[in-house]
Amino acid sequence: MIKLKQKKITVFAPATVANVSCGFDILGFALSEPGDIVKLRLRAEPGVRIVAIYGGGGKLPTDPQKNTAGIPAIRFMEKFAPHQGVDIELFKQLPLSSGMGSSAAAAAAVLYGLNYLFGQVAPESDLLKFALEAESVACGFAHGDNVIPALLGGFILIRSYEPLDIVRLPVPENLFCALIHPQVEVRTEMARSILPKDIPLRSAVQQWGNVAGLIAGLFRSDYALISNSLQDVIVEPYRAKLIPKFDGVKQTALNHGALGCGIAGSGPSIFALCRGQSVAEKVGQAMKEVYEKDEIEYDLYISGVNRQGPRILTD
Amino acid sequence: MIKLKQKKITVFAPATVANVSCGFDILGFALSEPGDIVKLRLRAEPGVRIVAIYGGGGKLPTDPQKNTAGIPAIRFMEKFAPHQGVDIELFKQLPLSSGMGSSAAAAAAVLYGLNYLFGQVAPESDLLKFALEAESVACGFAHGDNVIPALLGGFILIRSYEPLDIVRLPVPENLFCALIHPQVEVRTEMARSILPKDIPLRSAVQQWGNVAGLIAGLFRSDYALISNSLQDVIVEPYRAKLIPKFDGVKQTALNHGALGCGIAGSGPSIFALCRGQSVAEKVGQAMKEVYEKDEIEYDLYISGVNRQGPRILTD
Repeated sequence: MIKLKQKKITVFAPATVANVSCGFDILGFALSEPGDIVKLRLRAEPGVRIVAIYGGGGKLPTDPQKNTAGIPAIRFMEKFAPHQGVDIELFKQLPLSSGMGSSAAAAAAVLYGLNYLFGQVAPESDLLKFALEAESVACGFAHGDNVIPALLGGFILIRSYEPLDIVRLPVPENLFCALIHPQVEVRTEMARSILPKDIPLRSAVQQWGNVAGLIAGLFRSDYALISNSLQDVIVEPYRAKLIPKFDGVKQTALNHGALGCGIAGSGPSIFALCRGQSVAEKVGQAMKEVYEKDEIEYDLYISGVNRQGPRILTD
Repeated sequence: MIKLKQKKITVFAPATVANVSCGFDILGFALSEPGDIVKLRLRAEPGVRIVAIYGGGGKLPTDPQKNTAGIPAIRFMEKFAPHQGVDIELFKQLPLSSGMGSSAAAAAAVLYGLNYLFGQVAPESDLLKFALEAESVACGFAHGDNVIPALLGGFILIRSYEPLDIVRLPVPENLFCALIHPQVEVRTEMARSILPKDIPLRSAVQQWGNVAGLIAGLFRSDYALISNSLQDVIVEPYRAKLIPKFDGVKQTALNHGALGCGIAGSGPSIFALCRGQSVAEKVGQAMKEVYEKDEIEYDLYISGVNRQGPRILTD
């Protein structure tokens, strides 16, 4: 039986931007801020309990079997500490159904925290598996382009799901993100259901040219190449209409110097990648003015790319 | 008026492998061997003449307006030496309609040679433009995934055609290629016409995951990642049936240690990328035995990746 180093911990895990324009279902990166926080307290009796949820407007289930923070805890404890239990407090700071990887952040925080408490007992492959199971419950599809960067940090390529093959990509030093969240909900299932089953081969060629260019741009810290490659000719045309004033916000971001601008995950948040923090701040300012003019409620975040993944807030 | 440094030159330009499994229409690399050779001789009178073609079985037109070696010469001379002319002898060493970039090699050799004779007068953008025009006549479509690597050497990404955006990719030191050409002709137009106009989004996601993985693998010299990424779920299933015993040759190559195996360009040649020359030799040997068993005529080539593009054979 594994001996406990300590009994409780508080963990932060980051918001994430999935898809990243040209990388639908295969790319994602983590933000430095914002993120979700969980407090974990180990118990001697088996079982996972969600004892409190702060934030989320009462919409998140406290049944751990139905909660994306609960599921990975159940799987982790079953495998690595079947005779013990854990109480979870969830401080939900990320807006729900926002495209910012809210469910993924909570799952990543729980897995990172439990693995820390139990002395890094779990191999990465187990953490990834449990994380994907949590996303499967949250979104009806085990997509990993939020939860894997939330767990590992940085810019992540999921080359393949079957078998799972993860590639950590380099992150250019001056890459910053302005992210604006208009306060409407877009459910991932719905955003997925409006996509066509088939796409033109010609458009697919454009898309994989851009994906290839983006990867090369990240390796070379070639901001011009990154900028030229941040185009989505497949998914954005369908999903843009779910998002208030998407075209206006995007054009404004590009006009103010963003490298590229697109839908974060399945939306409605809009991300703009920028070279340097001051550009990101200027771009963010301009994006929010678009919403303020039409009295659309929003949250705005300016952030670097999180390179480390979750972090311990208090031992 | 530009003063001639010299009046004649002999140039070699390499065969190329386009598509490279997952990179349909966006990736290509140059081989060290084989290639086409041209002899260029400048004249004082304007006009481009193809004075001799050796090889090609009498199938290539001597009208320079219809010949892929003639067209780029016409464009080059129009722009950079309108009052002079050039006689071209073409030594066609590459089999026609083989998927080895035969028309591209001749065009690249002519452009490289003329630019050398005129003291590097043409910017790269002009050379690329003229080269694409030649391919447009040869194939009915200005695709550049053969002619651009033939002209520049190495592993090339064409991120976009409109506007043209070329990325030179790194080439891992030990990357070798076994290429087998079964002696049947597959016309590019035909190989293109059998492709579907629309493809499943789900397959496209797999393909761009693999493209992204291949690019990352080339940057990291990560042969396992390169190997896992060398998959084509879009085009190969349609074109494989045009090629004698494709499945058998591919499986044999993989069984003998190839990193990956696929259709070179639009076929019928089959390439296998390998780690190290000795593996490529073993793989080539095994591939040819598949054809020998069924008495299918073939050419076999074992080659490194050409990093320099065309080269001057005699000043």
